[in-house]
Formats: sequence, C-alpha cells, structure tokens
Amino acid sequence: MHCPRACPTKRDTNPLTYSVRYCSHSNHSSAKEELPPRLTPCAFSAFLKVLNSSLHLPTGGLVINFCTQCGQEVNLLIPQGDTHQRHVCTNCGHIHYENPRLIVGCVSTWDNKILLCRRAIEPRLGYWTLPAGFMENGETTAEAAVRETWEEAGARIAIDAPFSMISIAHINQVHLFYRGRLMSPEYSAGEESLEVILTKPEAIPWSDFAFQSVEITLRRFLAEAEQKRFSFHESVLAPNT
Amino acid sequence: MHCPRACPTKRDTNPLTYSVRYCSHSNHSSAKEELPPRLTPCAFSAFLKVLNSSLHLPTGGLVINFCTQCGQEVNLLIPQGDTHQRHVCTNCGHIHYENPRLIVGCVSTWDNKILLCRRAIEPRLGYWTLPAGFMENGETTAEAAVRETWEEAGARIAIDAPFSMISIAHINQVHLFYRGRLMSPEYSAGEESLEVILTKPEAIPWSDFAFQSVEITLRRFLAEAEQKRFSFHESVLAPNT
Repeated sequence: MHCPRACPTKRDTNPLTYSVRYCSHSNHSSAKEELPPRLTPCAFSAFLKVLNSSLHLPTGGLVINFCTQCGQEVNLLIPQGDTHQRHVCTNCGHIHYENPRLIVGCVSTWDNKILLCRRAIEPRLGYWTLPAGFMENGETTAEAAVRETWEEAGARIAIDAPFSMISIAHINQVHLFYRGRLMSPEYSAGEESLEVILTKPEAIPWSDFAFQSVEITLRRFLAEAEQKRFSFHESVLAPNT
Repeated sequence: MHCPRACPTKRDTNPLTYSVRYCSHSNHSSAKEELPPRLTPCAFSAFLKVLNSSLHLPTGGLVINFCTQCGQEVNLLIPQGDTHQRHVCTNCGHIHYENPRLIVGCVSTWDNKILLCRRAIEPRLGYWTLPAGFMENGETTAEAAVRETWEEAGARIAIDAPFSMISIAHINQVHLFYRGRLMSPEYSAGEESLEVILTKPEAIPWSDFAFQSVEITLRRFLAEAEQKRFSFHESVLAPNT
C-alpha cells in the first residue's frame, strides 16, 4: 500500500533504507517542541515487514496516521502524565493506545499423535505450525485456542490447560499455547492451511517449522509427555535468538 | 467527548437508551448491502462506560470512526475470507483489527506482607488493588509487571513466576498476575495511587477491593502461600459473576 501522504520516501524502492529518513509531516502541530523526528508510515511498515520476514515472524507493526475519532492527523508525542510515546490527535486530542496482541493456539493430540498445519498464507507460507492465531475481542483465551484449531485444522478439541507463554517484545506479541485433545480423529485443512496432519512425534517435520515459538512449545510438550507430567512454561524470544 | 458526527442520538442524556438507536451515517457506502445497523460512536462509548462502571471493571471499549491510514470513514462489515466484523475503510480498504489487551501485574511480598495500592484514578478511585496495568508494546509480560509495580507503587521487584491468568471476554481483556518479591522494603505512591501499603494477610481490606480479578488472584495466592506450593491458575470472569 502507498503512503497516503505525499512524502518523498514513498518513491524509495529499498524498504530497508526507509529507516534513516523522516517524514516532513510532523512539524505542523502547535505542540511542535514535543515532537520527536518520525518515520514515514510507509517506511515504518516496509521496515517492519522486512524485519519480521527475516525473523520468520508474523507482523506486529501498526501505523497510525489519522485519528480514529475525528479523522484528523495525529502526532507522536508523550502525553502529560504518561511515560510512553502515543499517537495523539492534533484536532480532538484523542490518544491512540497501542498494546501487544495475544496469539493463541493449542498442542492437540489423538492417540499420541500431534495435530499440525502447513501454512497457506504469509508469513512462512508452506511451513508447518500448530493451529494458532490472533485472539479476538469477546472471547476467552481458551475459546480462542478452540476456534483457531477449528478454523485452521477443522478439528474439534477439548482444552486441558495452559502450557506455554512466550513474549516476543520486538513484534509486540505474546504467544500462548494450551494443551488439548481432539474429540474425534477428524480434521481438514481450513482456508489458511495447505494441509493438516496427525503425526507421530518421530515424524514431526522439525526443519520446516514456521515459527520458533511453535517449535519451542512442541519440544517442551514432547519432553514432558514422556515424563507424563506437565507444567506451565514462560519464556522470551529476542530478535537474535 | 461529543460524537464527532452530527448524529441525532448525541442529545440523548441517558447513555443506556443509546443501545437501541442506530447511526444514520452507515448507509453511504458502495457496499451498502453488507452493512449491519450500527451504534453511534458516542452511544457505544457511553454504554460501555456505564456497563463497565457497574461491573467495577476498567473500560475495554474502542470505537473507530475514521481510517488510521487515510482518514476517511470506516464501515463495520465482515471482510471476504474473515469470520468477524471489522472496521473497514470506505476509501482505501484498510482493515482495522481490534484484539483483546493484556493487563499485567504482580503479587509482591516482603517479609510475608503483600504490596497493595489504593487507586488515585477511575475506574474505582479510592479502592485497593495490586499494582497492574496495560502491557506496553516493546516489553515482555514480566517486564510489564516490573514496570507497573515501579510506576504505581515505587517498588523494585524480582519476578518469581506467572501465577494467575483471567480472561474477561466482555471487556476484551486478559489479566495476568505474577508472583514476585520486593528487593527492599521501599515503596511510595506513584501518580496513579493515593497510597501504597505493605500489609499482613490478616489486615487486607477485602471489602474495598477495586477489581474481582485482583481479589481472586490474591485469595489464591494466600491459600497457596500457606501450603508453600504454588501453581499457575487460569480462569474466566463473566459479566454475571
């Protein structure tokens, strides 16, 4: 998508070089002194896309150019009494808070086999993953895991317990995986999956996994399944891991 | 805040009656047939405020009227291939995803006493709580708990483990509490606290707690502290609980 403003960087063809340029649109505000230099929206989006793609991670970037309440331009500044930069409307003063998103999924089993999906969408199209996705408004974390498994793998599951929580701060995400069981050995590829399998642990395609958080979770699950004693795990994924 | 559109319901003085009125601004789109009737932004905000206030819960409502990318009006519809209603731009087609937010805090102890704050802000101004708040972009869940405890209670803590996770689907929030320890018996009220105390379990002001998720977490913590064995707890808070 093109930048909706006529900023000079939109003609730059290399998205990585965007990161050293700044937009000319942030200097019209009455609160001029408080404004830090700012990346153009298209530059930031492009930079995040390249960064996340190289890290094999779904995108967590969100750019706000205009106010959701009145449609006027926003500026990036630290509101009074706050400690973080926010997009603040130059017209009505509305503050646009951005917070990390929860990605929820499940390690589901049937007869000691694991349910896996091969992705039909980017990022990491063609690679393997556990059924998982963005938690939606109006649902609980467990409901999100059940829904995602139904949507992506066509499988009905019963949830056992939360199993693995992984913070990925540089893409503003928290990944949460449950343990669960298929209610019958029925499954089918949803719109976001190329294929779905129930695989024995020894046949898991480790070298073709889409995301590190999924691989970490599954390795932990198999180790604990062997000991027949599960606990809850918390960890952090940094850009260089 | 007034509704930025000149919708007739903004003159209604009882926010609860807003819920049965619909905005006249959702019928200008080319995708007219796909549009469901829609609450006015001000009506929805007011309704959520009253609902959350009566439930003693922080607000989780977010209204989107205009596109964050190009500043044009948005419509509420289900995009192709999606299963949920989203705010979609009538001009550039940008889809505005809204997802639950994580509120992170900590049960922090020093010498078998618990660190508590009395709220200096709405909702539930004047009532007691554990230090907790919205997780910010760029941090891990544990970092969020440490930061919130520093900001609200002026206390430096070491994190032990995740302890309690509570889904509150009707306000689009997940509350996550850690166990932790103060690094020294120093604390002071931050901007969002009227006072901060280190209290013995028998002196906890149970009848004056701000939020049910905090009370549930603290009761579980004290029960397990007595047995000197902690686990991770997951639960759900529904509107009628």
